[in-house]
Amino acid sequence: MESIKVGIAGMGVVGSGVAAILKRNQSEIARRAGRGIELAVVATRTRSKAQALTADGVVIVDDIMAVARHPDVDIVVETMGGYEPAKAFVLEAIAHGKHVVTANKALLAEHGNEIFAAAQKKGVTVAFEAAVAGGIPVIKALREGLSANRIEWVAGIINGTTNFILTQMREKGWTFADALKVAQELGYAEADPTFDVEGVDAAHKISLMSAIAFGVPVSFEAAHIEGISKLDAMDIAYAEKFGYRIKLLGITKRTPEGIELRVHPTLIPESRLIANVNGVMNAVLVKGDAVGATLYYGAGAGSEPTGSSVVADLVDITRLYAADPAHSVPPLSFQNDALAEINMLPISAVKTRYYLRLKVQDQAGVLADVTRILAEYGISVDAMMQTEVDDSTQQTHIVVMTHVCQEASIDAATAKIEALTSVSERLVKLRVEELG
Amino acid sequence: MESIKVGIAGMGVVGSGVAAILKRNQSEIARRAGRGIELAVVATRTRSKAQALTADGVVIVDDIMAVARHPDVDIVVETMGGYEPAKAFVLEAIAHGKHVVTANKALLAEHGNEIFAAAQKKGVTVAFEAAVAGGIPVIKALREGLSANRIEWVAGIINGTTNFILTQMREKGWTFADALKVAQELGYAEADPTFDVEGVDAAHKISLMSAIAFGVPVSFEAAHIEGISKLDAMDIAYAEKFGYRIKLLGITKRTPEGIELRVHPTLIPESRLIANVNGVMNAVLVKGDAVGATLYYGAGAGSEPTGSSVVADLVDITRLYAADPAHSVPPLSFQNDALAEINMLPISAVKTRYYLRLKVQDQAGVLADVTRILAEYGISVDAMMQTEVDDSTQQTHIVVMTHVCQEASIDAATAKIEALTSVSERLVKLRVEELG
Repeated sequence: MESIKVGIAGMGVVGSGVAAILKRNQSEIARRAGRGIELAVVATRTRSKAQALTADGVVIVDDIMAVARHPDVDIVVETMGGYEPAKAFVLEAIAHGKHVVTANKALLAEHGNEIFAAAQKKGVTVAFEAAVAGGIPVIKALREGLSANRIEWVAGIINGTTNFILTQMREKGWTFADALKVAQELGYAEADPTFDVEGVDAAHKISLMSAIAFGVPVSFEAAHIEGISKLDAMDIAYAEKFGYRIKLLGITKRTPEGIELRVHPTLIPESRLIANVNGVMNAVLVKGDAVGATLYYGAGAGSEPTGSSVVADLVDITRLYAADPAHSVPPLSFQNDALAEINMLPISAVKTRYYLRLKVQDQAGVLADVTRILAEYGISVDAMMQTEVDDSTQQTHIVVMTHVCQEASIDAATAKIEALTSVSERLVKLRVEELG
Repeated sequence: MESIKVGIAGMGVVGSGVAAILKRNQSEIARRAGRGIELAVVATRTRSKAQALTADGVVIVDDIMAVARHPDVDIVVETMGGYEPAKAFVLEAIAHGKHVVTANKALLAEHGNEIFAAAQKKGVTVAFEAAVAGGIPVIKALREGLSANRIEWVAGIINGTTNFILTQMREKGWTFADALKVAQELGYAEADPTFDVEGVDAAHKISLMSAIAFGVPVSFEAAHIEGISKLDAMDIAYAEKFGYRIKLLGITKRTPEGIELRVHPTLIPESRLIANVNGVMNAVLVKGDAVGATLYYGAGAGSEPTGSSVVADLVDITRLYAADPAHSVPPLSFQNDALAEINMLPISAVKTRYYLRLKVQDQAGVLADVTRILAEYGISVDAMMQTEVDDSTQQTHIVVMTHVCQEASIDAATAKIEALTSVSERLVKLRVEELG
């Protein structure tokens, strides 16, 4: 059978990985897919890359749209990243009846619903395993492996940059700024690290998993997002005293009231496997009603790990090539006409446990005031700790771990606590997830 | 569209889980599969089960072969276990053009090649996610999620009974016999635990993963199998002093000389995530050339976890129902006509690191004798430890961790060491895997 022909727009880190894998493992891939998968057309302006590719018989074009429209191309791979021209390219390829594989989480988190609808109309596939957690086949697990389950929640370490920074802060006691600097030197963080450290990248990814898990449209705009740039190493150390590690988690949860979708630094019991996922590695924990908790771990970024997911999508599409589109797995697992209405919860409606730290003057009655206010709002305390008094300032830290309560209650209580004259700084509030 | 009709043979633990999931999550499953999946026919002789099922409109039959031949049944589920009549049932169902989902690792490890060939001839699918690691979708990950990769090795904790026993031995210092007794009391081990504790069950599972990983026929007969019944708690404690945990691993590895396939207690660095998988939980670590190491963790047994995998297979088959069989994922990932020839390595050809413990008389020259013999066979020592001398017997233990060497050399050297007059017992030999 003739080979399937692939066109790539974007020969950066991921695109190069895809090309390398297709070349190196071509016979193994053909044995699995039932026919060859061949890189046929590439859009690149980098002369050195173009020369190497031309030597392999690949057609080089300047214009990405020439890839989207190329008559020889069966499947396009979009690895440019960003919103435009990636979106225009993907829509153009769909319009020309090409299947699409993309690693672009930002694009799908913001414009996925529109793109999936266009693809359905045209009867082509949009596959995006590489958009979430790099090389870990977690989209496939959620979409197909766990299809028997009513998914209860998904929680993931899905940004390697922040996990590296948090690991360094914990192991070496570094500040966020110092750890970020090292991450940048090692190439784990970009010059402008905002998208990663402020949690936006993780929010893109958890928004996609939320849609797949619960059968709802992609709802990135409803995500509550907090990053790690304001995290104090002190809180990592205090959390440890209570038996917890702090990780930046993307969390989505189904509750009777609606769907929670949030990214924030989170305390996790140190005995959980996911609490021990360190460095740039990623892991996603999924709770299903039948299977219980399953965990997926691996490299969340990098040229070939991400390329591994792109090529797996190419193999899936190749196996189904020319089949009736009705046989394809829908992009969000649930059939497109069977997506449910969404009721996304605001962060104030979230119910979980909280870690609170406040800096107070060491004077009689402070602790009584704090516990009285918490009780007033129905917040019960699970554990409490007071640090040694700083002799020079006569100040001390009080750390409180609460039982489960609603975020709105916590916010009302903490506003009142911050108004106490003995409280000298804004209170630190972190969320706690048992992930049991 | 009309529902897909399922017939189940075997309403034990797994069969009941499948029935429960299909009933409870029917609307969610239909939204994913594009049409309903309905339990239509069941073979059971248990009156109470039959009554409950009849109330749901399920047809009850006495004879399993009536399920295999039933004109209303599109897919059969085999959850009887064992070799016969399971094999006859599966072949009969295939002959009648039914797709088959089975949780039966013993059957597929021994007769998989014959069954897969029969299914291919008839153009039906044989799916078996539930046969390996219960609810963890690791067959799907290996077969589809990692299809871009040349797989280098697979190593898994794939038997919950033995992992529970090993966890108890480590945490409580219990003997194997005591830990087994507790496992039996808790229902984690069967009255006759041989298949589990002697590693046969794990060997069935790793044989299936080996075939999928490397694109070769199932080769259970070539597996080297050692269980944990002779493991001494002392060795768990000594391994810990070197920074290792002992787990019963199923391992399959591609080497330039051939494929390794083995099950045995294995020392793993305690810093590895998989070393921290405890109790009855399962985990599989897969190393691919593009993606690196990925890990899959979850419940390896139980009614609904295993049922979760059976139903996921039903959804996959339903999505492809009535499509040309050429579009299906082949049972071993590689297309059936593209399986490679096998060169399975005997255990004597395996190269790895070793843990050796010997009981010796505390007399001058013993250590010199041992190290001289090891050197003679080209075995270099990475670390060594001698325990305190037992005053009553004047005996002591010597523990040696070697660098990588070939098993044949180790066996020759240890035979010579055991012949020393100062060595009073058979030497303990365990294998060490870094899993890096």
